[in-house]
Amino acid sequence: MTKTINYNLPIKLITQKDLISANCLNVSELLSVVENAFKSYAAGDVIFPEKMSVIFDSVSQNRINSLPAGIKSQNVFGVKWVSVFPENPQKNNVPNLSAVILLSSLSTGYPFAIMEGSFCSNLRTALVGSLAAKYFAKVDSTKIGFIGAGELAKTHFLVMKELFPKINTCKVSSRTTNSEKKFVSQLSRKYPDVKFIACNSDYEQAVSDADIIVTAISGQEKILQPSWIKKGAFYCHVAGLEDDFGVALKADKIVCDNWDMVKHRTQTISQMYKLNLLSDNDIYADLDEIILKKKKGRENDSEFIYFNSVGLSFIDIALANWMYKCVLDKGLYTDFSFKSNSMFDII
Amino acid sequence: MTKTINYNLPIKLITQKDLISANCLNVSELLSVVENAFKSYAAGDVIFPEKMSVIFDSVSQNRINSLPAGIKSQNVFGVKWVSVFPENPQKNNVPNLSAVILLSSLSTGYPFAIMEGSFCSNLRTALVGSLAAKYFAKVDSTKIGFIGAGELAKTHFLVMKELFPKINTCKVSSRTTNSEKKFVSQLSRKYPDVKFIACNSDYEQAVSDADIIVTAISGQEKILQPSWIKKGAFYCHVAGLEDDFGVALKADKIVCDNWDMVKHRTQTISQMYKLNLLSDNDIYADLDEIILKKKKGRENDSEFIYFNSVGLSFIDIALANWMYKCVLDKGLYTDFSFKSNSMFDII
Repeated sequence: MTKTINYNLPIKLITQKDLISANCLNVSELLSVVENAFKSYAAGDVIFPEKMSVIFDSVSQNRINSLPAGIKSQNVFGVKWVSVFPENPQKNNVPNLSAVILLSSLSTGYPFAIMEGSFCSNLRTALVGSLAAKYFAKVDSTKIGFIGAGELAKTHFLVMKELFPKINTCKVSSRTTNSEKKFVSQLSRKYPDVKFIACNSDYEQAVSDADIIVTAISGQEKILQPSWIKKGAFYCHVAGLEDDFGVALKADKIVCDNWDMVKHRTQTISQMYKLNLLSDNDIYADLDEIILKKKKGRENDSEFIYFNSVGLSFIDIALANWMYKCVLDKGLYTDFSFKSNSMFDII
Repeated sequence: MTKTINYNLPIKLITQKDLISANCLNVSELLSVVENAFKSYAAGDVIFPEKMSVIFDSVSQNRINSLPAGIKSQNVFGVKWVSVFPENPQKNNVPNLSAVILLSSLSTGYPFAIMEGSFCSNLRTALVGSLAAKYFAKVDSTKIGFIGAGELAKTHFLVMKELFPKINTCKVSSRTTNSEKKFVSQLSRKYPDVKFIACNSDYEQAVSDADIIVTAISGQEKILQPSWIKKGAFYCHVAGLEDDFGVALKADKIVCDNWDMVKHRTQTISQMYKLNLLSDNDIYADLDEIILKKKKGRENDSEFIYFNSVGLSFIDIALANWMYKCVLDKGLYTDFSFKSNSMFDII
């Protein structure tokens, strides 16, 4: 029997608009996708190769990262291709970050979807930080403070507010007052019950009263100081080296998405580890241990808890695959065929 | 001054049909792109991170590779995302290989093109093998013999015939007579001056008389035998372990695209290196040394020369970027915008 080989390479293209229209901003569902991804990881269901990171220029820190991961039981293996060019807003009038996610089937190896990736990427970071907050921030948190006012900071607000509906005050500080203003104007429209305060680059003002502190700022300055942090606060460290070493030293608990990965990178507590200012014993838990109830979350109202996220690409892929199913379900995508036959049939 | 940030993420989508219509099969131009890529590499103009290779199943050898590379002077950094699932034709009625190439700008980090990748990938392999043939096969070669009859074998014929217009006989052997027949029917239409002979899986018949031998067959059988190879032949080893160790031992010269990379892989001469059957001294040259005229090509008509290609992703990226310029020039692409504004402007 002669089989006919099908040379088609059809791929579903998914825009940010498709993702929003398909209700991919459903925070409670997203959080359960993230929790399940951590459980898959703990159960050995995740394929998690080394990431590639190429820094093109040590001064600008312009870089492109390639973050592959797969989830066996979901029959998916994909990659997030993400660029971070910190000078972009100033030099090129485009955001510092761009991302594209490609998903391939584990049955055929074929790519089946290409998705705008900054939506998923920013959400992943905010969801993981907020999941940590769910276990480690005070349940009646009302005040949130931001250092950094970009897309990532705004996305954190979006998710945190869903988990902590009592949040009524949001202070924001940034290098430029313009981005603070944009943060406030975009979010105050959507959240009339919250008082948004732009702090005119006064970082201390933004966080000193906060139950939840988020630092999502590029650059390598140690901005956040231990004296600014109030008793019982939860701190979500998102970027690189934006806090004084004293902050982690002050913490009652340090929690990571994955300490084994964090310690080999260049974030604040990674550097402290390399300088012997922190050891493995100083890390209370990884987030999967909390989700699986192997360890407790917050134990009293006075603990100051430090959360550090390095970014786990299998969570991006789990989220992207869930988003793919959402857009598929609602028909919100563009079919595109990169190839329809053998080139030897047409040349 | 307030700058307006542009959140657009427009990407040019490029199909196989676009590539063919834009005349990306111009072999002499393609060969000079490949030669220039080797020169760029030798000149330190190439960014060449470690590839990722994930084998999902040791029996089937199903795998996905991610091959990143960049060329600084061309302002491009990209990735070839390629799957090889050997059982695909039998099990899923689709080719064993799929590939997508993504190109990003080194000015902004932004991806600017997504291209069907098997066209470029197969061409890259055939171009590198043919470039080696240009220097190491007899100039008056008339007979070419193939073990393997798939897309990659056919692409080799296409390029070799351009470089060696005197080729008048092409014998092909494969595991299945069907694929031999398809090889012959597709190519004989295009090349009426060549006598194509399907060898009914008789591998020896296909290659024993050949001036140029190409093995492009999946699987891990040592098919090609040293006794089959005639004096003065050029052998282009494309796949993995398809030749007896005696073949390389018989060679007067062994040439690689890049021996330092070859020796750490699992191809025939890589395995011989690990078994101490070959040493660094047994390798005559890398292809860039020949292109840069640091070493001579074929020196007489009786030499048997063995060429082994591991596959260098910077050549894929150089080719893809040249192809991108061709389709751009002719307007043969599809503009697609993955994102047009900040998500906070629309939610």
